[in-house]
Order: sequence, then C-alpha cells, then structure tokens
Amino acid sequence: MEKLRVELGERSYDIAIGQDILDDVGEAVKGLAPSPALALVSNPTVYDLYGERVKKSLAAAGFDIVEIIVPDGEEYKNLLWVERILTSMLEKRLDRRSVLVALGGGVIGDMAGFAASLYMRGIRFVQVPTTLLAQVDSSVGGKTGVNHPLGKNMIGAFWQPSLVWIDVETLGTLPKREFLAGVAEVIKYGVIWDEDFFDYLGKEKDGLMALDSGALAYVIRRSCEIKAEVVSRDEREGGLRAILNYGHTIGHAIETVTGYTRYLHGEGVAMGMYLEALLAERMGIMAAGGAAKVKALVDSYGLPSGLFKGADALSMVDAMGLDKKAVAGSIHCVLPEQIGRVRVNEPVERDELLALLRPG
Amino acid sequence: MEKLRVELGERSYDIAIGQDILDDVGEAVKGLAPSPALALVSNPTVYDLYGERVKKSLAAAGFDIVEIIVPDGEEYKNLLWVERILTSMLEKRLDRRSVLVALGGGVIGDMAGFAASLYMRGIRFVQVPTTLLAQVDSSVGGKTGVNHPLGKNMIGAFWQPSLVWIDVETLGTLPKREFLAGVAEVIKYGVIWDEDFFDYLGKEKDGLMALDSGALAYVIRRSCEIKAEVVSRDEREGGLRAILNYGHTIGHAIETVTGYTRYLHGEGVAMGMYLEALLAERMGIMAAGGAAKVKALVDSYGLPSGLFKGADALSMVDAMGLDKKAVAGSIHCVLPEQIGRVRVNEPVERDELLALLRPG
Repeated sequence: MEKLRVELGERSYDIAIGQDILDDVGEAVKGLAPSPALALVSNPTVYDLYGERVKKSLAAAGFDIVEIIVPDGEEYKNLLWVERILTSMLEKRLDRRSVLVALGGGVIGDMAGFAASLYMRGIRFVQVPTTLLAQVDSSVGGKTGVNHPLGKNMIGAFWQPSLVWIDVETLGTLPKREFLAGVAEVIKYGVIWDEDFFDYLGKEKDGLMALDSGALAYVIRRSCEIKAEVVSRDEREGGLRAILNYGHTIGHAIETVTGYTRYLHGEGVAMGMYLEALLAERMGIMAAGGAAKVKALVDSYGLPSGLFKGADALSMVDAMGLDKKAVAGSIHCVLPEQIGRVRVNEPVERDELLALLRPG
Repeated sequence: MEKLRVELGERSYDIAIGQDILDDVGEAVKGLAPSPALALVSNPTVYDLYGERVKKSLAAAGFDIVEIIVPDGEEYKNLLWVERILTSMLEKRLDRRSVLVALGGGVIGDMAGFAASLYMRGIRFVQVPTTLLAQVDSSVGGKTGVNHPLGKNMIGAFWQPSLVWIDVETLGTLPKREFLAGVAEVIKYGVIWDEDFFDYLGKEKDGLMALDSGALAYVIRRSCEIKAEVVSRDEREGGLRAILNYGHTIGHAIETVTGYTRYLHGEGVAMGMYLEALLAERMGIMAAGGAAKVKALVDSYGLPSGLFKGADALSMVDAMGLDKKAVAGSIHCVLPEQIGRVRVNEPVERDELLALLRPG
C-alpha cells in the first residue's frame, strides 16, 4: 500500500492506494478518532459486491453503522436524496464528530460528500471510491454536489475528505465501459500536464486493459498526484485549477444535449478532449498534428472521439453558455498548446464553435 | 456611517452601520465588481417596507435583478425553499461572479446565505439585515442554513458575506417583540465578554427602547465587534466560538419542546441565559447573585426569564442531547463565572439539569 498526501493546509489528507485493502478501512477510519455512530453511504450494486466486507471492517473497529443506500444512477443525484441521507443521519443521532463513509463511484462520492458538508454545517467524510473515474477524479479536489434540472452539479460545496481509501481490486468488478470512461480522465492528465504520462498510457494500454495491478496503481497514483498538485495551488478554482476542465466544456455540452443518458461522463470528456484539441489547432494555439495524437490515444482505448450523428451544434453552444464555468454568457475553453501543456480561460467565438460542431 | 472590518483572512469583509443608508446599497454592491445579474431575496413584510428602495438603488447601479420572495416565517426555512431560490437563480442565469442580496431578518439571511453557498458551489452574498437580531448576530459568523424536522439549523454551511449593510432606521418598523428578542442577544454579549457593556445596557435602557439612533448604532457596533473578535479567533467553532452559545443550550431546548411557535429565538435565549446563570451558581461556578443580575436586566426589558407553565424537564433535556453542540449524547453548557466572563464546554449532569428545569 502506498500513501499520497494532498497538501491543503489544515484540510490536508491522505490517499491510500493498494491491493485488497478494503478489509483495513475500519482501522483507518478509527485513526480519525470519530464518534462511534457512523454513516455508510453506498448504492445497491456496489453494496452487494463490497458492502459486507466494509461493514465488517467498520464494525470490528467498533463503529455503530447506519447504512444508507441510494439507488443506482445519476438521476438520483439530487437534493431530495441528499435530504434523505441527512434524515437518516439525524435519526441515528450522528454528531459533529461522526464520520460518513462513501462507498461507490462518483455519484455516491459527490452526494455523500455533499451530505457530509451540510450535516451540522460539516462533518468529516472518508471516500472509498470503487470506479476508476472516482479514484482518479473525485478523490482529489473536494468538489461535492448534486444536479439540478437546469444543470449538472449546479448545487454543491467544496468539502475535502479526511481520507481516501482506494483498493484497486474493486476495478475487477467494474463494467468495461465504466472503466474506459475513467481512462478518459486519466488521458486528460497526460494532455494537460505530463507528456511522458501520455506516452506511458499509449505504451501500457494492454496492461491497463488487462487490469494489471501494478500498472493500475501507478496510473491512479500519478493521476491523483497531478490533480493534487493543481488543486493544492488553487483550491477554489480561481485560476490554475481550470486546466482540469480540459475536454469538459464541449464534453458537458454533449452530455446536456443528450440528456445525460447516452454517454457516460468520461465518454463526453473523451469527445470533448479531441474536439477542443481540434479547436486549438483551428485557432492556431496548437501545431497541426496535436489533435490527431489525442484522437489516436482516445481511439486506441475504444473511447469515442467523433461527434455523434445528428448532433445539433446550436443546442450544444447554448448549453455551454449556461455552464458553471461561463461568465455572463461568454464561452471559455481550456486549449492545449501541445501534449502536456494547456492554456486556461481562452475565449472562444460562438461562430468558431458552431463551425467546429456542425456536422460535415 | 461607520465601518467595522471583520478580519477573516481572505474572507474578511466590512460591516457598514448608519442611518438612512439603504439608498446607497446599490453602489456598495457594485464595489464588489459582480456580474450584472443579481438575486434579491426577501420576505413579503420586509419587501413591502423596503423592497422598492433597495431595488431602485440596485437598478440605478446597473443590476439586472431577479426578486425572490420567501413567505414569512421560520417554517419556510427549509431545503425546499432553498431549492426554489436556487432554481430562480438558475433561470435568471446568474453566474459564479453574481451576487445575492439578502434583505430581511435572520431567516432570510440564513436561507439566502445558504443558497449563495450552494449556488455553483458558492457565490458572494451581501446581507442587508432589517431586524436587531440579524444585525447583531447573523451579520457576523458566517453561519447559514435551514431547519430539518428533526432539529433546528441541522443543515447548513459556513459561508461569509462579502458585505453587511445595516441601516438602523429599519428598526423603526420592527415589531417591539422582535426588537426585544434582538436585545436578548445584545445582553448575551455583555455577559460573555464585557461587563461595562452589560452595565451600559442597564443604564441606557430608555434610550434604546425609544430607538435612539446613536444608542442603537453604538449597541449594534459593539455587539458586532465582540462577535467579530470571537469569530476571527475561531471561525469554524473549534473552541472559543462556543461562548456565543451562552443561553442557547437551554434556549434551543425550550424552542424545540414548544415547537418553535411559542417563543421567538431571542426569548428562548433570554430564558436560557437566566437558567444557565442559575445553573452556574448551583454548580459553584458563579458566585451567588450573578444570576439575579442577569435576571434583572432581562426583566427590565420585559423579556421572559422564568420557565413557562407546564414546561417538561425531561423533554427539554432530551432535546439538548440531540443538539448540534452535543457530542455522543452528553450535554455541555456555556456557564458564566461572572458578568463578562464565561467558561465553555462545561459538562452538565442530566440530573442537575432535570432538577433545574423541574417546576416548583
């Protein structure tokens, strides 16, 4: 097992990454010296697979556990379900020194972390992410929240976990499509920060697809390291942190116009990364050939890079104007200068986007 | 007009206190350099009295205002209404640089501040408190949130305003009973921090009751100063800040068992202050006679100090065990050693409380 420290002053915390470490989570949580009453938030799929092991480990460490199971799916990531989580915690009389443990993917982590931030104005929470996306993305950065009918992640809080516990073995039960969606975010770290890492992902494709533990642990650690470095320099998204949104401006727009049902978040990001790289080329920010490199890596993992049939450019551009990152309706993108380096906050003309996204 | 700076590092902000300064709020908000789309949250009573003036001032400063009116009363201080506020803001496409202005008393300030903390994970808000309680209490400390059927203020966030704009003239339209509820919190500052201020409140009673502007401005400023000093030393309620809860452990319990309908918050605090002073005497923490001084000042303003008829000691003590401040079911109080000095986090025996609260 290895530990990575995310440096955020008094909000610093550890990310533990290892094989078969799920049974040790109870002792690790106990190390935070919490009250005995503890909330364990999960979804039915993950709970069926790992719930008993985690519960047993927590019970052995002396915790009195209230299990809170949220139905599977992004459509339950809303304020109503957060309120239900809070109600269960109040019924069990969790106090300010209690801990909430989130066992699951990004949806569970976002909602449970948000609930922890709200409960009595904030209690500690521990993330046990079981998807690659949650391990490399949600585990660093402290972004928590829920969706609103008018926009994704529009309601939320910045709230750092007190500990992240990553067992790479949990990826063995993750559907391949979800695994690949996580790979998209991993590729993103290569493009925005580290060309060597980008190349590594090309060379080690077979090992990663075969879920080689060593390769996985390295990729997760390096991804978390990069994100941690970015976030520790800019916790509340004032400047540098925006580079993490590479691929997300167009990616979110694709998710929005397809009603969040057709593509997984990572798939939207994969498409967004290629399209934003293409945009960078068209705007003369990146040399010709850069976008092709992004496309080649994305394609090699079987992730989508091209726009879907029938994509409506106008709806997508409108969706971008309502994005959280938009200010007063203008649209900005993170655009690569080359693999490993990006520019943040580049203003993009509406017409340029329409031309890029128009089919044919 | 005078300004008081609340020092909280990068979250520092000003409190402006003056007479007839409501018409200048637009320019002051503009000084924060926000986006043009702005939310103005109020309730029907306050909006009828001051809404037009504030709106006119904001419009003159160039803002495009979405008015969000929440019905009067603590019963609307819930997650449902916060969601409605957020929906209106999303419909109006407020962005991350937009500002929310809260015009009203504590309920409006708590809810609107909470909505601001949640909107896109946090936008700035400006408080224009129109009750004495909101002016001397909610305007410092950053506590925002809503109630849950299982407990008051159980859901919330710490979120600091960017500016507080206090026009003492608004107290002219405040019902006397609500004014006095604010005086209870003012008396609290005397007991916990400043004996001279406590004495001043006794001597200047007539001027304050007649709403003398000079006396009011002084009392509001001194109250905010004391609270700001406490909060700047302990923003997230780790230690010292707990002294602000003097009168609140029993006060909240009284509010809870009477369903939050019989007493205003300040009235609960008035009773709680006297009863907790009495408790301090019974436990040998304060010399005999101290509680009588508290009672005399509370009574002189016509605030309640004794327990109501039919008060059930057991229900009250149970309510205290579920209070946010309780840890693992044990009950702690803030107990005065003398006027102007208190001890925090004193553990109190259940039996001691039952004896204190039992009628007769």
